[in-house]
Amino acid sequence: MFQLVLLSHQQHINVGNLSLNAELMGLPKDVPIHVQQTCLMGGKQTGSRLITLTVGGSVVRVVPTRGMAVLDVVRNGVRFGWDSPVKEVVHPSFVNQEASGGLGWLDGFNEMIVRCGYQWAGHPGQDGDEFLTLHGRIQNTPADEVILEVEQVPPYRVTLRGRVDEKRFKFTNFELQTALSLTPDAPYLLVEDTLTNKGSYPREYQAIYHNNFAQPILEKGAQLHVPMAELSPFNDYAAGGLNDWNQMPAPTKDFDEMVFNIRPLSDENGFSHALLHNANGSCGIEVSYQTDTLPVLTIWKNTDTLEQGYVVGIEPGTSFAYNRAYQRDLGLVPTIGAGESKHFVVRFGLLTDGDQVQASVANIDQLQGTQTPQILSTPLVRLA
Amino acid sequence: MFQLVLLSHQQHINVGNLSLNAELMGLPKDVPIHVQQTCLMGGKQTGSRLITLTVGGSVVRVVPTRGMAVLDVVRNGVRFGWDSPVKEVVHPSFVNQEASGGLGWLDGFNEMIVRCGYQWAGHPGQDGDEFLTLHGRIQNTPADEVILEVEQVPPYRVTLRGRVDEKRFKFTNFELQTALSLTPDAPYLLVEDTLTNKGSYPREYQAIYHNNFAQPILEKGAQLHVPMAELSPFNDYAAGGLNDWNQMPAPTKDFDEMVFNIRPLSDENGFSHALLHNANGSCGIEVSYQTDTLPVLTIWKNTDTLEQGYVVGIEPGTSFAYNRAYQRDLGLVPTIGAGESKHFVVRFGLLTDGDQVQASVANIDQLQGTQTPQILSTPLVRLA
Amino acid sequence: MFQLVLLSHQQHINVGNLSLNAELMGLPKDVPIHVQQTCLMGGKQTGSRLITLTVGGSVVRVVPTRGMAVLDVVRNGVRFGWDSPVKEVVHPSFVNQEASGGLGWLDGFNEMIVRCGYQWAGHPGQDGDEFLTLHGRIQNTPADEVILEVEQVPPYRVTLRGRVDEKRFKFTNFELQTALSLTPDAPYLLVEDTLTNKGSYPREYQAIYHNNFAQPILEKGAQLHVPMAELSPFNDYAAGGLNDWNQMPAPTKDFDEMVFNIRPLSDENGFSHALLHNANGSCGIEVSYQTDTLPVLTIWKNTDTLEQGYVVGIEPGTSFAYNRAYQRDLGLVPTIGAGESKHFVVRFGLLTDGDQVQASVANIDQLQGTQTPQILSTPLVRLA
Repeated sequence: MFQLVLLSHQQHINVGNLSLNAELMGLPKDVPIHVQQTCLMGGKQTGSRLITLTVGGSVVRVVPTRGMAVLDVVRNGVRFGWDSPVKEVVHPSFVNQEASGGLGWLDGFNEMIVRCGYQWAGHPGQDGDEFLTLHGRIQNTPADEVILEVEQVPPYRVTLRGRVDEKRFKFTNFELQTALSLTPDAPYLLVEDTLTNKGSYPREYQAIYHNNFAQPILEKGAQLHVPMAELSPFNDYAAGGLNDWNQMPAPTKDFDEMVFNIRPLSDENGFSHALLHNANGSCGIEVSYQTDTLPVLTIWKNTDTLEQGYVVGIEPGTSFAYNRAYQRDLGLVPTIGAGESKHFVVRFGLLTDGDQVQASVANIDQLQGTQTPQILSTPLVRLA
Repeated sequence: MFQLVLLSHQQHINVGNLSLNAELMGLPKDVPIHVQQTCLMGGKQTGSRLITLTVGGSVVRVVPTRGMAVLDVVRNGVRFGWDSPVKEVVHPSFVNQEASGGLGWLDGFNEMIVRCGYQWAGHPGQDGDEFLTLHGRIQNTPADEVILEVEQVPPYRVTLRGRVDEKRFKFTNFELQTALSLTPDAPYLLVEDTLTNKGSYPREYQAIYHNNFAQPILEKGAQLHVPMAELSPFNDYAAGGLNDWNQMPAPTKDFDEMVFNIRPLSDENGFSHALLHNANGSCGIEVSYQTDTLPVLTIWKNTDTLEQGYVVGIEPGTSFAYNRAYQRDLGLVPTIGAGESKHFVVRFGLLTDGDQVQASVANIDQLQGTQTPQILSTPLVRLA
Repeated sequence: MFQLVLLSHQQHINVGNLSLNAELMGLPKDVPIHVQQTCLMGGKQTGSRLITLTVGGSVVRVVPTRGMAVLDVVRNGVRFGWDSPVKEVVHPSFVNQEASGGLGWLDGFNEMIVRCGYQWAGHPGQDGDEFLTLHGRIQNTPADEVILEVEQVPPYRVTLRGRVDEKRFKFTNFELQTALSLTPDAPYLLVEDTLTNKGSYPREYQAIYHNNFAQPILEKGAQLHVPMAELSPFNDYAAGGLNDWNQMPAPTKDFDEMVFNIRPLSDENGFSHALLHNANGSCGIEVSYQTDTLPVLTIWKNTDTLEQGYVVGIEPGTSFAYNRAYQRDLGLVPTIGAGESKHFVVRFGLLTDGDQVQASVANIDQLQGTQTPQILSTPLVRLA
């Protein structure tokens, strides 16, 4: 296996700009794999890095300086990701998460895969003695031990690893090992994360994979397919949109966001799948996830104007997007024991033809089967 | 035109230390123009950059990493700027604006031209649901697209441009294009800024050009000349100083600051002018500004000790220095429409001889003409 | 004297990685002195620097980017320092001290010598109009003017200097000159700091030298020896541990921390000494300090689990660890006049054999002499 350490405190390695073709990675010349790292510059990008993995038809852009986030993917000309008003790959040193009542996180929010967690996730606000900022700290934490691995035999799996620490003396001793992998022949991007509590006390934790998608998949007539046991509106505003919660409008002024809470159904392997496809079903994004550690799903329908951010989030999590204070009663604030590890697996199906979309719809239909989802007309949580 | 991109994410350009003489910029050898960029180091300067433009008799130091601030100007041996206790050119990554009740901005405050804005400016405090930190965020935002332009024909105008973004998903989508220019033959530094709301919703905004001056212009006997329709004290303390509001004392222990609010008069071109000159009128700073977008003027008389900061601010703005919460009733919280741009023009007259000062006084006298300013003895705002 | 400027804004010097042997410093080849500087990388270490001074049997690691902190010392195989869950040498740009109710400081806390101060030290909380974050700002401030000095004649004293500023317009104008020195032949590390108020007004200040030690010195049976006039528990929890306050347990689950406040006795030179030695007295750390400026001592008995942080703090200070609001009544919030300097001297005895430990015990016993310490059973401060 070809292995290249891009960043490591342990090994005192710090690779800057880099461009590797197949041969340089010991692969046959015609294996369609290319790896690039770029040091970004200008404005609040200063210090940011971008790793671009070209693997078969997929081009994946990873941000090691923002907790191994995935900025976006382009596969066969279809872009997976979205257009935030925030255009820069903002370096964490420019983010004050405490700003504006805990909303500073929004100053850097523009990626396709955004991890929220792990001490807490969800909306800002007071939880007992603690004030929690929006969506936790992990996304504004630069990774260490960033390592590229490329298998030398078919299917030539490319894996990018990075470790992200979330530590505070007396409070938190979390280490997150992230791994992102894909192969040239398959339309999948696999995220496998392991959260370990290195401390000697059990701790509450939360995780939300805030995965965000827009055009060309999101458009008027785009549809969501989710196998589910229960659907409920996040708040009163979303209650008004329950009827067509899974039907996407064109960019709509003053739509703002409707959020829907789902308790999903999973298959015999413990996976659930959520699909968003475009109007004519020619492309789509399928988000598959293991429901043992990610038991609930948030749908974030933010179909406002293009300039404001026209985007839908498909977000498996330990928890919904409420402040942690509200979620203990829902049983959605799990605990990680001393020395314990939790595994999170999320697979992204980057569907760029109608057959793939069709197959995913069929699979989800089968999962739903004859089970009628319970539709709650009022939110699970009465917000103060 | 000679053009050099010093910093650009778009073009992937990041020039470090640099020194250019006239010939290197394609100019005749004897054109007195020199450009230098220095990467600063040490303490909280780490990451800061300084661009020094020597143009004729003027040496202008610009800080691209602090929103294109102007640190100071020296012209013909006269320094325009001040001596803050903060000596470092502080990099924004070391500033937590939320610190100490929203006063963290003061940790880096030491420039001659300091932009305050643009979501808000003014004193920290609660405005409805929002806590606003002192003077907004723009000054602690590094610029991108920093571009030097030098015209190849007389008067050989030198222009330095930079773009500064103020963006937060769902809240703000502002872009500021700054341009600063001067010519070898004229005692003027021109700032032309354009604020654009790239979002699809109208937003409130505020701008204050917090321009600060000290010795040798500021001294015992230095005087301010401002053509005005109305003058009022910022607070009760300033009310006690209305009598000699425009007469400057020597550095004075326990003076702290008196702030005066002015509704200025403008000329037929829409410009107003404020002048501070030294005791014998041999040098001065004339701040001229377009009153359509900068309708009010704040005079910040901070004539405390040298060590504490002996300085006078001449600050045209959309608003006074009160917290935004107080200024809606004064009509001083304007709105910028979706896609709209606002232009701010401030010209600095760097006056280094008595004739220039004389001419400026005469011009201001003429502007005032026979109109008697209204002097309010109590503040416009009753502070809580 | 050999002098090397490692970092200086004044001189525009910024040395990166560096390795110097005795000859390169103009010393005879066999003088056991070596100096290294390393630029750290990865995660929140990005931008951090580490200076390693090898002087005789002592290896001292200094962090100029965190206010000249000492990460740890190893002497004759004995490590002086501790193992925080925070493993990285965190760069200040990643620390938001305002986070989580003022506890953000804990995100980088892992050194042997940690300065707390100088506007304030102690626990976070409201003091009048001001919200104070944990232990002040100095530790998260990078140094400037970092200078190495090596004397060319025996005893070949090695001194490392650095200046750290704590400045905020209108509020603070402090400069700290730090000096750390040692010689090859002696088991001492000497810290001599000078705090100067460059402003024209007197200011309150506080300083705590938060010195932290763990294995092999700290273990079950390790003992503290402190000559004292008065001992009191920090709070009710510590009151329950007064009996064996100076006897150290093995790492103990749920121990958390007990804090003891001491008014120490000092010798005829104005020094007091506190010793922590291991169970069999074969090694120990002796903290000596001038009590004119550091009149009180805090013992921080944090003998929790290894993973949580098994550590004892021996902390001379102007003040105890209470929030500043509580300490004015105790007479422990001193004032530094305009232009005045305060000198803090702390000497670390790095004792690695039984005789040294024995001598230190004897010295402390003699200091205590026949004076019986007053043991208060209740805290000096009634915490709200």
